[in-house]
Amino acid sequence: MSLDKVLNAESVAIVGASKTVTKRGYQTIRTLLDEKYEGAIYPVNPKEKRILGMKCYPKVSAIEDPVDVALITTPAKTIPSILEDCGKKGVSGAVIIAGGFGELGAQGRILEEKMVAAAHKNNIRLVGPNTSGMMNLKSNLNLVGLKNAPKGEIALLTQSGNMALTLITEASVKSLKGFTYYVGVGNEADIKFHEYLEFFDQDADTKAILMYVEGMREGRAFLQQAYKTTLHKPVILLKSGRSATGKQSAGSHTGALAGISEVARGAFERAGITVIENSDELFPAAETLSSLPRIKNNNIAILADGGGHATIAADLLTDLGVNMPELKEKTKKRLNKILPAAASLRNPVDVAGGTDDDPSLFADCADIILKDRNVGGLLIVGLFGGYGIRFAEKLALMEEDGAHRMGKLVRKSKKPIILHSLYTSEKPHALHLLRYYGIPVYDSLDVACKCVGVLAKYGRYLKQYHSKAGFILDSKSKIKTKGQEIIRTARKEGRNCLLEHEAKALFRAHGARIPAEYLADNADEAVKYAKKAGSAAVLKIVSPDILHKSDAKGVRINLKTEDAIRTAYNDIIKNAKKFDPKADIRGVLVAPMAKSGTEVIIGTKIDDQFGPVIMFGIGGILVEIMKDVVFRVLPISPTAAGKMVKEIKAYPLLSGARGQAPLDQKVLRKLLLLCSELVQSYPEIKEMDLNPVIVYESGISIVDARIILKE
Amino acid sequence: MSLDKVLNAESVAIVGASKTVTKRGYQTIRTLLDEKYEGAIYPVNPKEKRILGMKCYPKVSAIEDPVDVALITTPAKTIPSILEDCGKKGVSGAVIIAGGFGELGAQGRILEEKMVAAAHKNNIRLVGPNTSGMMNLKSNLNLVGLKNAPKGEIALLTQSGNMALTLITEASVKSLKGFTYYVGVGNEADIKFHEYLEFFDQDADTKAILMYVEGMREGRAFLQQAYKTTLHKPVILLKSGRSATGKQSAGSHTGALAGISEVARGAFERAGITVIENSDELFPAAETLSSLPRIKNNNIAILADGGGHATIAADLLTDLGVNMPELKEKTKKRLNKILPAAASLRNPVDVAGGTDDDPSLFADCADIILKDRNVGGLLIVGLFGGYGIRFAEKLALMEEDGAHRMGKLVRKSKKPIILHSLYTSEKPHALHLLRYYGIPVYDSLDVACKCVGVLAKYGRYLKQYHSKAGFILDSKSKIKTKGQEIIRTARKEGRNCLLEHEAKALFRAHGARIPAEYLADNADEAVKYAKKAGSAAVLKIVSPDILHKSDAKGVRINLKTEDAIRTAYNDIIKNAKKFDPKADIRGVLVAPMAKSGTEVIIGTKIDDQFGPVIMFGIGGILVEIMKDVVFRVLPISPTAAGKMVKEIKAYPLLSGARGQAPLDQKVLRKLLLLCSELVQSYPEIKEMDLNPVIVYESGISIVDARIILKE
Repeated sequence: MSLDKVLNAESVAIVGASKTVTKRGYQTIRTLLDEKYEGAIYPVNPKEKRILGMKCYPKVSAIEDPVDVALITTPAKTIPSILEDCGKKGVSGAVIIAGGFGELGAQGRILEEKMVAAAHKNNIRLVGPNTSGMMNLKSNLNLVGLKNAPKGEIALLTQSGNMALTLITEASVKSLKGFTYYVGVGNEADIKFHEYLEFFDQDADTKAILMYVEGMREGRAFLQQAYKTTLHKPVILLKSGRSATGKQSAGSHTGALAGISEVARGAFERAGITVIENSDELFPAAETLSSLPRIKNNNIAILADGGGHATIAADLLTDLGVNMPELKEKTKKRLNKILPAAASLRNPVDVAGGTDDDPSLFADCADIILKDRNVGGLLIVGLFGGYGIRFAEKLALMEEDGAHRMGKLVRKSKKPIILHSLYTSEKPHALHLLRYYGIPVYDSLDVACKCVGVLAKYGRYLKQYHSKAGFILDSKSKIKTKGQEIIRTARKEGRNCLLEHEAKALFRAHGARIPAEYLADNADEAVKYAKKAGSAAVLKIVSPDILHKSDAKGVRINLKTEDAIRTAYNDIIKNAKKFDPKADIRGVLVAPMAKSGTEVIIGTKIDDQFGPVIMFGIGGILVEIMKDVVFRVLPISPTAAGKMVKEIKAYPLLSGARGQAPLDQKVLRKLLLLCSELVQSYPEIKEMDLNPVIVYESGISIVDARIILKE
Repeated sequence: MSLDKVLNAESVAIVGASKTVTKRGYQTIRTLLDEKYEGAIYPVNPKEKRILGMKCYPKVSAIEDPVDVALITTPAKTIPSILEDCGKKGVSGAVIIAGGFGELGAQGRILEEKMVAAAHKNNIRLVGPNTSGMMNLKSNLNLVGLKNAPKGEIALLTQSGNMALTLITEASVKSLKGFTYYVGVGNEADIKFHEYLEFFDQDADTKAILMYVEGMREGRAFLQQAYKTTLHKPVILLKSGRSATGKQSAGSHTGALAGISEVARGAFERAGITVIENSDELFPAAETLSSLPRIKNNNIAILADGGGHATIAADLLTDLGVNMPELKEKTKKRLNKILPAAASLRNPVDVAGGTDDDPSLFADCADIILKDRNVGGLLIVGLFGGYGIRFAEKLALMEEDGAHRMGKLVRKSKKPIILHSLYTSEKPHALHLLRYYGIPVYDSLDVACKCVGVLAKYGRYLKQYHSKAGFILDSKSKIKTKGQEIIRTARKEGRNCLLEHEAKALFRAHGARIPAEYLADNADEAVKYAKKAGSAAVLKIVSPDILHKSDAKGVRINLKTEDAIRTAYNDIIKNAKKFDPKADIRGVLVAPMAKSGTEVIIGTKIDDQFGPVIMFGIGGILVEIMKDVVFRVLPISPTAAGKMVKEIKAYPLLSGARGQAPLDQKVLRKLLLLCSELVQSYPEIKEMDLNPVIVYESGISIVDARIILKE
């Protein structure tokens, strides 16, 4: 069901309406009246006849006219029965303020489920519970009680009322921007993040979507929606709850489990989301992305009066991966004509006092610089806005002239200008004018640079985006009968792990070229099979009770003679029995000895928020000690598989570092895709571990494979 | 010579005094008069009789009374002769505003040297050149022209006038703090950073020193002073110019080469300096460190009203290495008595609306929390300061009560409180009161957390500081006759590199246990020497013309038979001649074959700013691809050597990861110290490279050694 009737409600019932001034049930009605909500307001409270001059109803179903949304301010335990009553009235949505649900643990979860069941039964969509509420600023449907929130083009979606308050305050105090909607998603008991995102995606008035997230219940669906949305609207997101204490705090706050940072961050960024880490940068990034053209060539010029700021900005932009190209000779010549001899015409450009007599010269410089085809955007740092304050009042008027011209320049050139000024606190009119034209102004150099960074990054994303390379979630499974049999056998035996030869058989069933391996029941068989394996063989114990074969001394490698194989077979059986006298020993796997080469590790697991994810890294110290691994949400595309391989820091070891021949990345990519296919095809798979896989100049060898099934 | 007469000057001559209102020579006099400078002012200009009602002198030497300092505002080329004149008068210091010296390259450097020579000859110390000037805010000696800079307890030392303006503006607008002195160090032509630091160290009114640095001329002297200063006064520093473009910009700005980030950052931090990376955090860190007690146990509690902010803060503090311990049961019980049932009593503490009726409860909570011995400081996040604004005016008075009590609590408990508030822009009186008591208030959660971080980090530094572990720069050299001979021989032959056997001999001369190696002149000798070397030998070409022996196919390893050695010898000589027919071949070095083990790399070089530095890392991919190395400024102490070994990410490989035996760290530390000793003893050494050194469970083997001498 669309959220239109909920977020664009034309009538609202306030359940728990009150005459007590400090109560939410009073404040909300007061605010709706004060802010001139365009729809109908129905107070509901069985104990009152009239509230604020309006008729008060004993229950929602007693209201004569249609009701789109009910704001329910009463305690948790009252909600299910109120929803039943709302159902009778045909209410489309309810905003549940109360806490006391899933965020409190098992007891609360039961109540939450009961509430959601009542809602679904009655075709009611729920915002919350455990939320500060929601606002539609276009129709003045303010169910939050926070007054004077500025209107504008940003949709705000947060999991913390305090963060909403922070961002709305920041918008009021430091910008001319504002909001179309605010939704406090709360526990996401019914409506999920991705549904709000889809709604905002389709809302023509919303130009950017700003999110604060602690944990998500349906991360995959959200990513899928984000891939679509970010192609035409920027989504800016801060995800907190990384740290153990943060998670604890986030957990008690919203009841959704805060996820693994490395997986989440990567997944969000690949869906085109602008991920912000510092809360100071969250609103500015939304302000910038909602009003300025993106930087299309990842190149920025810096314009300054004096050093210091330019030096710091160059450092920060370099860290953010933005280039500061040389200006063209023509550009330098043109700048040279209007700037003093002491000016520096390299990038950063330093006017060196050349604007002291006429700061509108900044607009002339901006015009010249933005005409340079090497330059994709301009960052002005330092003193603009303060010439009138520092020197003479008439200079303020020149600054205003400059501001008008720079504002128009952005529109005309379709290249962004961002301004850092020391003088924002003095509120000079020129800075107000810049904001009017959509040029953001920051007193923080760090924030200004970060905003340049996000414009450039979003530009890079849109440029490199190919629909084919996109996120193919829920692509078709390629289930095989053989594979089903293997899993069925394990299940039948009450096992939740596949034995090594079963796991490998599953890979083979899907076309992986793994050399034949044989399960030997006695030493004679082992000798027979070893001959088939070639010049050297490996013997490994096979037992559902021995998962870590080496720990049980159940592996012998590089066996070349009949004697060696017999001894190895007997030792392995003896060791296994010693390790676990009750172990169910299925035999000894005889496999060809793999040549040595570069060992990599591939694994999959189920992430709390994003479902199946895959990990890749180069084995040994690089994974274990240096933690040099990459993650992707599954399934992955061929492009994604290729990028994974290249993203690890130790990639040069695969591409041919230090005079070595490059290794077979093609077959490695295929293996990653095959893992993706398996996880997709057999939803029973919980974890998969290929460790090690040996990569050669040509081909690979899967030395060991482990698959764990869901309980 | 002390800087007292310069920075505390009781009389000042303004050379280049002017009647033109926009000129520096007018503005400065005007400012000195307006701000009521306590000393004597003497305008100097041969063309004027009186300026601003004061007698104007044709030259400094014409002034009747003593002159401590001359502010010289005239162009670069005039300075040397003016200094000669100042010398006649016995002036102690001169502030040189003009640019056009070293920052412009070779031509400028000549003029700078001439100026410095004139100053030294006349016993004049120079501030600048290429500076915005200097201020003593205690005596109102304002030679900058910037008005209304707030007075306080922070000394400001910057290499950019813009950054000084930024920091002074920030102090005025966002704090109640101010400055004792400001010095724009400019090109550091005469007075260097460390001299200012020493002066501020000794100034009783200065409680903290705030620095912005682009490049330093005498980094070692600065570090040495910093080690002393930071023991009793915090030094807060932002170093820009990390990036290539940043360096370019910094270079054109101050003429000092911006240094290598990894070396500089590490060196500064080990000297106890609070290194800041974001310019937004620079002033707040100084504000915090100058007014609050440090966090002594690295433990912080967070107090919040609602989630969101607390979650973000917990993330940030975790990243900053600060612990958030559980509160003691007693503390929780006491909090429980005054907070509602919904409150979370874990850390972060969430009052959950419990302060809505009386926000002075924050002070009660703070008192209870700070009494907890687990807690070293308190961060309050969110809404304090806004209860009066959000709910009712009388709550503002309760907030003020709370502010008074919290202010006194910090003094009494000697534990810091830092406050984040959404409401700073509304300027509620309660927040003003907190600042009055020295409790900093920030509207940025990131900045508030960073300030907690620096208090905790400084606390950690002071706690772990042992004078013995400190920075022993210029410890005694241990020069040996044998070592001198080796270097003399190389010099005599016109070489600036030591041959491998010479380098090893140098190490041996200083007590390193390197097995004997022999230089063979023919295959027979090689065979003879190889027998001494043990079961397997290595042969390597020795030629001053072949630095990279492997590239010339000049190395053969693992030679076990007479035949193999003869063949190897002949091949090596043949290959060397082929590689460079003119090569001066000294023979072939015969060494015992080292057992295999973990390879590490040790190197030294001369850093532009800090002089000799040493690098350590684990060989192969970890250094080459993962860049897992640590640096230290030389010389190093035994403690520092131990820390270096432990600081690399791959340290587990040395300490015994993955079931391996731990390696011989003791002898590795000794080798690092020996490298330090060699660089200290022979200042001729420019670079040293021990690559690889093989580390065993017991002992090490220096497989190859290279030493390059200064030109």
